[in-house]
Amino acid sequence: MEFSLIDRIRDLTAQHRDDVRLGIGDDAALLTVPPGQELAVAIDTMVEGVHFPVGTPAADIGWKALAVNLSDLAAMGATPAWALLALTLPNADEAFVDGFAKGFAQLAQTYRLALIGGDTTRGTLTISVAVHGFVPPGKALTRAGAQVGDAVLVTGALGDAAGGLQCVQQKNHRDDTQTHHLIERLNRPTPRVAAGLALRGRASACIDVSDGLLADLGHICTASHVGAEIDAALLPRSSALLDLFDEATSRDFALSGGDDYELCFTVPVQQVAVVQADLAKLGCGATRIGCIVEGEGVTVRDCEGHRLSGRQGWDHFSA
Amino acid sequence: MEFSLIDRIRDLTAQHRDDVRLGIGDDAALLTVPPGQELAVAIDTMVEGVHFPVGTPAADIGWKALAVNLSDLAAMGATPAWALLALTLPNADEAFVDGFAKGFAQLAQTYRLALIGGDTTRGTLTISVAVHGFVPPGKALTRAGAQVGDAVLVTGALGDAAGGLQCVQQKNHRDDTQTHHLIERLNRPTPRVAAGLALRGRASACIDVSDGLLADLGHICTASHVGAEIDAALLPRSSALLDLFDEATSRDFALSGGDDYELCFTVPVQQVAVVQADLAKLGCGATRIGCIVEGEGVTVRDCEGHRLSGRQGWDHFSA
Repeated sequence: MEFSLIDRIRDLTAQHRDDVRLGIGDDAALLTVPPGQELAVAIDTMVEGVHFPVGTPAADIGWKALAVNLSDLAAMGATPAWALLALTLPNADEAFVDGFAKGFAQLAQTYRLALIGGDTTRGTLTISVAVHGFVPPGKALTRAGAQVGDAVLVTGALGDAAGGLQCVQQKNHRDDTQTHHLIERLNRPTPRVAAGLALRGRASACIDVSDGLLADLGHICTASHVGAEIDAALLPRSSALLDLFDEATSRDFALSGGDDYELCFTVPVQQVAVVQADLAKLGCGATRIGCIVEGEGVTVRDCEGHRLSGRQGWDHFSA
Repeated sequence: MEFSLIDRIRDLTAQHRDDVRLGIGDDAALLTVPPGQELAVAIDTMVEGVHFPVGTPAADIGWKALAVNLSDLAAMGATPAWALLALTLPNADEAFVDGFAKGFAQLAQTYRLALIGGDTTRGTLTISVAVHGFVPPGKALTRAGAQVGDAVLVTGALGDAAGGLQCVQQKNHRDDTQTHHLIERLNRPTPRVAAGLALRGRASACIDVSDGLLADLGHICTASHVGAEIDAALLPRSSALLDLFDEATSRDFALSGGDDYELCFTVPVQQVAVVQADLAKLGCGATRIGCIVEGEGVTVRDCEGHRLSGRQGWDHFSA
């Protein structure tokens, strides 16, 4: 069964690349990294009921399993190339595998990403994807370069996925455009790959917002040995989120909700305008939400400058 | 919790390599493939109760999760370099993580393999490991090159892991040297990395025996468009297996038992002696068990030349 499932996924995700010398079907894939490029590699796992709600459509699961990994490459400023898939599912459900593969392939094709290996096993629905991308030596974005005085920006909007999760968990949730938008943001996150590439050589530090802004910006602070101050009034929120939730809730979602997969990054202040113009051209835009300061940790202030106590991001072992 | 678990594993498996520019701790690792080398990449998943018995010691699980992947690199003739770990476990059990990391590290250190990335999530105990190795262009061993007339060989002994599984599943199994040997072979398989390297430029096809000899040699036949004939009397079996099980059972284990992680490979007949001498020096040895023929599929004959009906190897979805 292992072989036919992976073959089915391979067929649905077929993508020819010259750097894949031998793809799925042997004990390992054989690959060529382009001369003068470093390899960026990440792995992420999604478990049903923990990282996505029971009942999520198979195609959305396939999309998201790849999206969360591409988001890691985006945060490094790397160009996606190859993926490995480890798919554990309760039984050999052909309809599920087909749906999963279609969602996975839809996103993979956007980036001409090739599925180069996989393993299917029986167990609780669990998906691990490892992705590989290329980046010129020394050009990768890391969490470690934020400097005191840098501006802090985020792409897109924050809190949508947390709002979408709340909608999904309400049995009789509303069936309107705003609700659909939030659920789409939860189930089909857009990895900010083009934004990550545009930030090469400009952002001093970068991370993707997977566990929530406070937690992830906190990682930049730790790695860079700095602190950050965020102005809650500046948090970019979609009109759908603001329509469906009150101010305090939408702010909490924007600060602490996970799963948005926007990029949070720092740039020298004199670069803010040009970076914002470039990211606006890419469709996601970027909003300045605060600055890097001496010290440690993330401080959030409201519009009157009062310090709000920060909530933590998602922790899958304490959630 | 994710970060502390992976940090703990990183600390226990610390391995400096110049080709790791940035290891665990950012959104992705940054790596350099040595000039003039291809990258070999594989991923395998183990699920508790499916790929290893409930109650297997944590250190054995850590060892085996890496071993089954290194076995894939061995089957390609690749030199191990890096691994990614996706560890899903029911709760943040520090003792389990420590034991797991120690078993993983013990095998990793043998090969100076660096853990470059990971993800820990909550769920049913499930471990996916992805490994990366190097191989000179065109030198990798594949399943596709077996020629009619080639000899079929296997390293080491077959059937031990299936025998060990049967022992473990008997509540009051014997507590003697033979039983310990078989359980050790089940829980701590030895990837035949050095053998795979020695077979570069010599073996016409190679695979590791993970699903059982019949199934895996069958994959060589399919990929090479040939058939194979195996002499059941020639199957290498350990004295432990022969002591604890009758002839028919040990033969079944050798033909169809999975999890041995020996290499099955084909070589031109004039190369058999020199290959056997080289693999004997490496400690595992190699036994000639049959030959490649025209046609398709694997035929097994007993010592009088009668055709035995072949049993299939493990299929985790029908097992």
